[in-house]
Amino acid sequence: MRYKATLEYDGSSFFGFQLQPGLPTIQETVEKALLSLTHNFVRIFGAGRTDQGVHALGQVVHFDLDQIWDTEKLKFGLNHFLNKTMVCITSIEIVPDDFHSRFGAKEKQYLYRIINRHSPLTLDHGKAWHVGNSLDADIMNKGAQLFIGTHDFSSFRDSHCQAKSPIRTILNAYVKKNQDEIRFIVQGRSFLHHQVRNLMGTLKLLGQGRFCLDDVKRILESKDRTKAGPTAPPQGLYLMWINYTQVK
Amino acid sequence: MRYKATLEYDGSSFFGFQLQPGLPTIQETVEKALLSLTHNFVRIFGAGRTDQGVHALGQVVHFDLDQIWDTEKLKFGLNHFLNKTMVCITSIEIVPDDFHSRFGAKEKQYLYRIINRHSPLTLDHGKAWHVGNSLDADIMNKGAQLFIGTHDFSSFRDSHCQAKSPIRTILNAYVKKNQDEIRFIVQGRSFLHHQVRNLMGTLKLLGQGRFCLDDVKRILESKDRTKAGPTAPPQGLYLMWINYTQVK
Repeated sequence: MRYKATLEYDGSSFFGFQLQPGLPTIQETVEKALLSLTHNFVRIFGAGRTDQGVHALGQVVHFDLDQIWDTEKLKFGLNHFLNKTMVCITSIEIVPDDFHSRFGAKEKQYLYRIINRHSPLTLDHGKAWHVGNSLDADIMNKGAQLFIGTHDFSSFRDSHCQAKSPIRTILNAYVKKNQDEIRFIVQGRSFLHHQVRNLMGTLKLLGQGRFCLDDVKRILESKDRTKAGPTAPPQGLYLMWINYTQVK
Repeated sequence: MRYKATLEYDGSSFFGFQLQPGLPTIQETVEKALLSLTHNFVRIFGAGRTDQGVHALGQVVHFDLDQIWDTEKLKFGLNHFLNKTMVCITSIEIVPDDFHSRFGAKEKQYLYRIINRHSPLTLDHGKAWHVGNSLDADIMNKGAQLFIGTHDFSSFRDSHCQAKSPIRTILNAYVKKNQDEIRFIVQGRSFLHHQVRNLMGTLKLLGQGRFCLDDVKRILESKDRTKAGPTAPPQGLYLMWINYTQVK
């Protein structure tokens, strides 16, 4: 029987999603909870490998269990073993045997949070990017619109990215300011390695006045990573949700 | 010259606001930063002594400096030394010599956050009270209204409370639910020791169905601490703001 589980986690104390020998990761933590509950080793498959320090409200994994579980009991049992790990299961459902968390994903939403103020962070420490210089969120929003559509995102692709093609489709992207918080929300079918953080790094320089809108257009068209801004730090990034039904 | 500073802090790693020999407190942290910046020992006076684990977005302190400082420079300088302490200064202004953070306060607002779901907390760990049993926020809101006005709050007063009178005036109180978060917001001129957490503890039992609205009325009228619910844990409590102008 195949199960789909939605995970929430605070990525601060993990070395990312993916298993790494001897290091705490999300995958290891969830597989340990599955072992404690079922007394069997169970491999989980994540929709995306979030990096060290990146958070999730709606990461999705799938796994197979021989036994048939009531999904609520399975969720309660796993959360019992996940208590205090900073990972939890927010929902579980039974899915068809051909469901795949990664290959079946039709759309993902990421949120990137900036706290834009001089004062150092306290309650948001490790949960947002602290930017001291004043940013213009309106121009950042206009910049975000330039990313919408199908483009070659080579300028925003990490050198370690293993994707075959640098072409990706961004279905929605905008920037919104609320008091001293600036949020960049971006949706797409899939993303290149570090793509959201690299887009954010460039939008931040746009907001600071170091780039203008034409610069951002030229950077995208250049297909040259060295032309764009640096990678924004991981702690501002949240994987919000993954949609498995066809996007219109 | 007297200065009024507004503080934000994550109370998780502090033993409360007030100085305690050998223990990290908010007061000690800010006085250390003042010493580092001014090379003088400066005593600060807080509007309220938040307990261990309680957070603040708008705590207010006052202190006197011999030198005349530009308030922005003073704020920047203190925040430099406060970086990574989980305390920061969000604003500083010069005030009349008779300004007193505690005795001059006309109204305070507290927020208490509950996350009401079965799954353990991750990103909100240490930032909210995790309540697994389902709560009825509507009845909790009706319960909160019963506290509005001038009452003898002996039923919600900690045994260590040093206030002369148990009579307090609550100017506004309500409960609001947004997804799995339940927020209790309460405003008053001043509060008894543990008053907000004790009110919350009773509202939680009301939301669980352990008390009805008439029980809450009777508890308030009984002036008997043992009749009310237990003290809610500190990590859900936030001192939001303090108003120094006359309340209409």
